[in-house]
Amino acid sequence: MTPRLLRLKQNVLEKNDRLANGLRLRFRQAGVFVLNLVSSPGTGKTALLESTLARMRARGLRVAALVGDLATENDARRLARSGAPVRQIVTDGICHLEAEMIETHLAASRWPLAELDFLFIENVGNLVCPSGYDLGEDLRVVLLSVTEGEDKPVKYPSLFNTADVAVLTKIDLAEAVDFDRAAAYANLQAVRPGLRVFETSAKTGQDLEAWLTFLLEARTQRLAETS
Amino acid sequence: MTPRLLRLKQNVLEKNDRLANGLRLRFRQAGVFVLNLVSSPGTGKTALLESTLARMRARGLRVAALVGDLATENDARRLARSGAPVRQIVTDGICHLEAEMIETHLAASRWPLAELDFLFIENVGNLVCPSGYDLGEDLRVVLLSVTEGEDKPVKYPSLFNTADVAVLTKIDLAEAVDFDRAAAYANLQAVRPGLRVFETSAKTGQDLEAWLTFLLEARTQRLAETS
Repeated sequence: MTPRLLRLKQNVLEKNDRLANGLRLRFRQAGVFVLNLVSSPGTGKTALLESTLARMRARGLRVAALVGDLATENDARRLARSGAPVRQIVTDGICHLEAEMIETHLAASRWPLAELDFLFIENVGNLVCPSGYDLGEDLRVVLLSVTEGEDKPVKYPSLFNTADVAVLTKIDLAEAVDFDRAAAYANLQAVRPGLRVFETSAKTGQDLEAWLTFLLEARTQRLAETS
Repeated sequence: MTPRLLRLKQNVLEKNDRLANGLRLRFRQAGVFVLNLVSSPGTGKTALLESTLARMRARGLRVAALVGDLATENDARRLARSGAPVRQIVTDGICHLEAEMIETHLAASRWPLAELDFLFIENVGNLVCPSGYDLGEDLRVVLLSVTEGEDKPVKYPSLFNTADVAVLTKIDLAEAVDFDRAAAYANLQAVRPGLRVFETSAKTGQDLEAWLTFLLEARTQRLAETS
């Protein structure tokens, strides 16, 4: 990268950080817990989100989702089946979401943030671009499917070492793809020591209750810290 | 994207195009057929390449590979098992390969291009970044695994509509993931009408011979056009 391009990129990231800090303040004041889901395309962010939204709604929790994609509104349509309010952010070729997009779409949605318990942001499927862009989230969740290969954390360290929690997806396929669980954990720990890992399947429902409990506890803890 | 950033990006792409055209000329003069493999991380570029290199060498073909990754030399180590000369390009966080990187690494490799029949370039796993960067290749190959979801071509149109051929991978898992073959084909044809598609499995070997035959014919045709 040329020095000029690098400087411009730094300016873009600094502006994003400022906006993200403003968002984070608003989220905390409203008492809404915000998650930013990142992964490779096809890892299963939408599938995990679909069942998380449905299970949360079944418990009476107030949830909403913003979904980023380069093109198409497919994901918003899938997620809307859960009954939760969902908005698609079409990035027109940009390979990540930015704090400014979140601001704009929250304003357009007119969702009263104080009436939400959880806001899920599904990032564009990409193991590189989203890593530098803070969206004001409380928790960054990186997903990794067992079909992608155990080496992804060490090949895309910047995305994995900025995550707060990891979710292994499609665990029902582990045997069919000879998934090397020990190698996957070793690689995750190598780039992000102490990272909490869930092993889920949207198909069989495995570990989805543990995942839900974790999210509820994380929100309770955040509220206690803020109040 | 700001106008200034957009203009800088255009300059970068124009420079890349110039270098790529120079590479293409060198490749044609040397009679080496060059492929650029693009896909999401974990689709199976390295696995397809591993068996393609091994099968080509078994037929006495002279092959080499350049492999791009953000970090690690894992892929080069895997591919070297085929016996073919392999060089890793570590991009240090850049999410695609550029013509200049190809030039530099070819120079450092000292491979006599005229003594190669095929040169494979495995791009960084990413469904966005590599699409704008010509590497002087004869054929751009996009891979899509059946585990990623049939919607990827319409969600990442720029990568799929710049490809010359598509390879469906992990076809042995099609049943386990309820792969919707008709939807995948419809989406591929929607963004790239007439795209040739192979359905392969590095595990069972399905369609790998047809894939090889296709590559040999494509090279023969190119040589006939050039001479």
